[in-house]
Amino acid sequence: MDVLAYRPNLSEFAWTFGGVKPVRTIKPGTVLEVWTEDAFGGKVRGPDDLVSKVIQFPFVNPQTGPFEVEGAEPGDTLALHFVSIEPSRDWAASSTIPFFGSLTGTPRTAGLQDPLPERIWMYEVDAKHRTVTYRALRGDYSVQLPLDPMHGTVGVAPANLETRLSLVPDNFGGNMDTPEMRAGTTCYLGVNVQGALFSLGDGHCRQGEGESCGVAVEAAMDTVLVVELLKGMATPWPRLENDDYVMSVGSSRPLEDAFRIAQADLVQWLAGEFGMDQLDAYQLLTQASETPVANVVDPNYSIVTKIRKAYLPGPAVYGGAHARLKEMGKGYLAERR
Amino acid sequence: MDVLAYRPNLSEFAWTFGGVKPVRTIKPGTVLEVWTEDAFGGKVRGPDDLVSKVIQFPFVNPQTGPFEVEGAEPGDTLALHFVSIEPSRDWAASSTIPFFGSLTGTPRTAGLQDPLPERIWMYEVDAKHRTVTYRALRGDYSVQLPLDPMHGTVGVAPANLETRLSLVPDNFGGNMDTPEMRAGTTCYLGVNVQGALFSLGDGHCRQGEGESCGVAVEAAMDTVLVVELLKGMATPWPRLENDDYVMSVGSSRPLEDAFRIAQADLVQWLAGEFGMDQLDAYQLLTQASETPVANVVDPNYSIVTKIRKAYLPGPAVYGGAHARLKEMGKGYLAERR
Amino acid sequence: MDVLAYRPNLSEFAWTFGGVKPVRTIKPGTVLEVWTEDAFGGKVRGPDDLVSKVIQFPFVNPQTGPFEVEGAEPGDTLALHFVSIEPSRDWAASSTIPFFGSLTGTPRTAGLQDPLPERIWMYEVDAKHRTVTYRALRGDYSVQLPLDPMHGTVGVAPANLETRLSLVPDNFGGNMDTPEMRAGTTCYLGVNVQGALFSLGDGHCRQGEGESCGVAVEAAMDTVLVVELLKGMATPWPRLENDDYVMSVGSSRPLEDAFRIAQADLVQWLAGEFGMDQLDAYQLLTQASETPVANVVDPNYSIVTKIRKAYLPGPAVYGGAHARLKEMGKGYLAERR
Amino acid sequence: MDVLAYRPNLSEFAWTFGGVKPVRTIKPGTVLEVWTEDAFGGKVRGPDDLVSKVIQFPFVNPQTGPFEVEGAEPGDTLALHFVSIEPSRDWAASSTIPFFGSLTGTPRTAGLQDPLPERIWMYEVDAKHRTVTYRALRGDYSVQLPLDPMHGTVGVAPANLETRLSLVPDNFGGNMDTPEMRAGTTCYLGVNVQGALFSLGDGHCRQGEGESCGVAVEAAMDTVLVVELLKGMATPWPRLENDDYVMSVGSSRPLEDAFRIAQADLVQWLAGEFGMDQLDAYQLLTQASETPVANVVDPNYSIVTKIRKAYLPGPAVYGGAHARLKEMGKGYLAERR
Repeated sequence: MDVLAYRPNLSEFAWTFGGVKPVRTIKPGTVLEVWTEDAFGGKVRGPDDLVSKVIQFPFVNPQTGPFEVEGAEPGDTLALHFVSIEPSRDWAASSTIPFFGSLTGTPRTAGLQDPLPERIWMYEVDAKHRTVTYRALRGDYSVQLPLDPMHGTVGVAPANLETRLSLVPDNFGGNMDTPEMRAGTTCYLGVNVQGALFSLGDGHCRQGEGESCGVAVEAAMDTVLVVELLKGMATPWPRLENDDYVMSVGSSRPLEDAFRIAQADLVQWLAGEFGMDQLDAYQLLTQASETPVANVVDPNYSIVTKIRKAYLPGPAVYGGAHARLKEMGKGYLAERR
Repeated sequence: MDVLAYRPNLSEFAWTFGGVKPVRTIKPGTVLEVWTEDAFGGKVRGPDDLVSKVIQFPFVNPQTGPFEVEGAEPGDTLALHFVSIEPSRDWAASSTIPFFGSLTGTPRTAGLQDPLPERIWMYEVDAKHRTVTYRALRGDYSVQLPLDPMHGTVGVAPANLETRLSLVPDNFGGNMDTPEMRAGTTCYLGVNVQGALFSLGDGHCRQGEGESCGVAVEAAMDTVLVVELLKGMATPWPRLENDDYVMSVGSSRPLEDAFRIAQADLVQWLAGEFGMDQLDAYQLLTQASETPVANVVDPNYSIVTKIRKAYLPGPAVYGGAHARLKEMGKGYLAERR
Repeated sequence: MDVLAYRPNLSEFAWTFGGVKPVRTIKPGTVLEVWTEDAFGGKVRGPDDLVSKVIQFPFVNPQTGPFEVEGAEPGDTLALHFVSIEPSRDWAASSTIPFFGSLTGTPRTAGLQDPLPERIWMYEVDAKHRTVTYRALRGDYSVQLPLDPMHGTVGVAPANLETRLSLVPDNFGGNMDTPEMRAGTTCYLGVNVQGALFSLGDGHCRQGEGESCGVAVEAAMDTVLVVELLKGMATPWPRLENDDYVMSVGSSRPLEDAFRIAQADLVQWLAGEFGMDQLDAYQLLTQASETPVANVVDPNYSIVTKIRKAYLPGPAVYGGAHARLKEMGKGYLAERR
Repeated sequence: MDVLAYRPNLSEFAWTFGGVKPVRTIKPGTVLEVWTEDAFGGKVRGPDDLVSKVIQFPFVNPQTGPFEVEGAEPGDTLALHFVSIEPSRDWAASSTIPFFGSLTGTPRTAGLQDPLPERIWMYEVDAKHRTVTYRALRGDYSVQLPLDPMHGTVGVAPANLETRLSLVPDNFGGNMDTPEMRAGTTCYLGVNVQGALFSLGDGHCRQGEGESCGVAVEAAMDTVLVVELLKGMATPWPRLENDDYVMSVGSSRPLEDAFRIAQADLVQWLAGEFGMDQLDAYQLLTQASETPVANVVDPNYSIVTKIRKAYLPGPAVYGGAHARLKEMGKGYLAERR
């Protein structure tokens, strides 16, 4: 088992998907131990560190990577299995940002109203008791919420010669901001360029579905993932799998198009994997799919459509990749102990 | 405890919210035992009963009601607590319908492509084992899905002098098509006209989030609900409560506006109930809300935003109405045994 | 030639399409001389008459009518030819309204920002020199804009048992807010109920395309129109015709659906009238249609798609109704002189 | 007067905005004589040259450029005045393309319906009589439409480290597909990177507003433009000016956001140039702006908002750049004769 530990220094972050040289080249089957900085580059550490003051746009949402995967070519699928995602500090931060978020006008949902006030919420992270503590800024209410660490951003280099800012989610993955991207999940991404060139970042100690104000409980993360390459298998939109569910992630605007993408991809995926008639798969999803919103704040909005594997005609997708990668992750954890 | 049993005959259904005379007048606190016909008026009973053949639009989605609630006035809130929702037959039906559903053009998302084929899926309903059986039309795959009965449509007469078809969800409730409308849930609706004039229908044995093809597992239902009136409490958009969650339901187009409505309503509801600062409530929801899609097929699309009551500053909303109505439901069930 | 003059008093306005008894019954071929009050019911007469103060919602946008047309049945088309539309006062009013308009959050594009300030702009109307005078409230800029009188709202009773507020545009016409509804234009509306039950109002001395802030140069109007009935001709969405153009009006959300409706209706209209292949008509419109936005502020957004009649295979649509009605209008004007 | 003639060969086209080295470096004030290939790379020459057969995606919509402008820096504005745009061949082509266009599902407005048929329409271009001839494929209808040559695509390198495919319109310009980009128009684009790096292409002999089927009357063009640099003047979204109008172009999804961008930009532009209060400018645009749709088919949809200069408080924007560049164009034409 190849294990690669990689911790970027400040000059090594990527700010885009595509357009960046790889920081490392790895073989399929490698276990990657990486550190990711938080979306603010670690600069929001207290109530006065307003985002508009400490962040120089577009240098936001730093990515660790990209990693080049040997042998990866357009038409293949990259499978990333998250073994563990753990906050690397005992604090995390959130914020409102002027003209950003779902309950305000933005540069695209343009208007003439004044922006909402800019404020910072700091969270205490208790990794042992698996909580993060929310504290109201006005009044003295506080509450411990379950720690549920995840990556908001995981992606490969885009197709079509493009380079996209790390804030963007699309068919190459990117800033999908779904809480489903937690430890135990395998993320499937279609390879668009030689070497795939994937990167990740934007750790969240937790987030609500929709990430309403635009900023989750942002945190640096220590993450372990198994990287696998599935040759000759195409993946048009990001797909996720955990022990119980298979999922498709659609990202577009308006939000109904994100829904349509996720539903149609899951219909076509299931029809393809199990030889189902498309309308039969459409009917099954109509009755059995769950569709949590992921984000309604990024340049594209994202929705997840998922279905329990127990309801499917067969036991495994992508030739059983998830189970295999999970075993590799177990092997790694056993060795490490 | 007043108990009213009501079973409409064919000529007594309502096809709209508003514009219809009440079938009964009831006192607040009444337990209502009602029967609702399925969305097809019971006419789809086999693979040849194509919707385009057996249904004369707009006579689709018949509603049981409306019921007039004594003393209900604009500015009040109607609270409907669902004690039980049980399929009244051992079968249910679903269908594709030409130019209806989320993965096809429609008269509004207009286009020039041919429609998808029209097909019927019949389901066996096993109330004892709590399952419905899906059977693929092509190939021999079948699977038992959990029975999870609910009402797609619950609403009051609209404001603004309007009469809306029973297919429409909006701020008066209506055809929201969320699986959260199950037994154990209390639905809060703002009263717009004297007497509230609420009705319900569109039973589903279950549905996926989004109701992708436009038609759930449609079934007639025997339903028991407690009807309560909360005087002087306003409710701008439909809200739901069960033992674990409070929820707001937004309905509009595009889908992001449904999201914005639900999120903003929940922010303002929590701020109002618990004296929270609006931005503090926005921040809390950003990290802790769940936002399942309800429907992406009706004249308005619907999204639910919900948050666990365990995360809120106080134990109860609407003065503890949910707990009180749940107790009344228990009392009714005890008496009935 | 039947000529009917009708001037409603305050208690005779309609506030909805549908759900209202006719004020008069007329024969097809009648010339109607009507007066319409402005959208504010004439109550905004100076800078202190804030809409939020003087208007009791939903009593806004009063309609003159409805008129019952003898013999009109579902499946027929009502043709309304506007002979003249003239402001009946020498002033008109516009306004910003809190949480209404395209450059602000609204109850549906919901948010947490403060509303824009509420202000009134009064216009001088010079019918002789055909101008309205805009005056900035801050600074001393003023400019004379061309008088271009039109009706924002023209509609019939909706289908599907519905009653809609006069603020709503949809397939029954209603509050489309397009400047194309001027004298010289024929408006075709599909009949949904016995008698058609059409009404009109919302006179504008002029408006920009999109009616950005939500309020045009609102004015009472003296209007003459010829009312004709086209038996056995269906009209799925509102259509307009003047000497140079035929047009379809789509109304929905999001705005691209309004576009799709208008384009698809015009494709199908031309294909039907002239025996064109649908794809050929689609291609012709792609190169030759003009598509001004009508409104982006009402419950549905509206877009007009239009094409010059000079580019079409034949000289006339609807059997030459426009030319015939125009002649009748000329006859009326000649008699009246 | 510096005049640069540039005609790219096949290997010199750019397929993206950003991410490409400049083909030439020019001084502000240069007159550029360029040739642009059509969007199909000249490969669609007859009814059998189906786009899905002859085009290898993403090598579609080739751009001539990019040109580096000496001294251009972020915060400046590039002004491109089109002196002449003339078709360089006597034919042009259009097409339907599977799952592309406004009246069909697409990979983003995803669905399960079959695609529309793929067909080619060839046009005869008569530069002398200023016509293009449309011919129906089914039946024998043909009509001469006015020749109205324009560029669908004009843009600079994007901000935020991004590289975008030439099919994309956004705040950097790009594939806006508005017929307003004709000879006599000045296009203002904000500079995002050192040297601006602008390119252009996608000539259309004409197009309808909305470019409904996704493909205009595509043609190679001989184009002359004057390139000017306005130092220290920022331009957030593309703006156009001709002798009669100033215009803003918004590009986003859903279409109402494109409208909001264009309207808000024009409000803020006018407020800034003329010291108008923002609400006064909003009111003026509400009554006097024209808002033709540009495209409803590209990765972002585009809308133009324009207002007659005669209605504005002052005679000139951008310090009179348009008039100055027009004079330079006249000088060039006089010399050349």
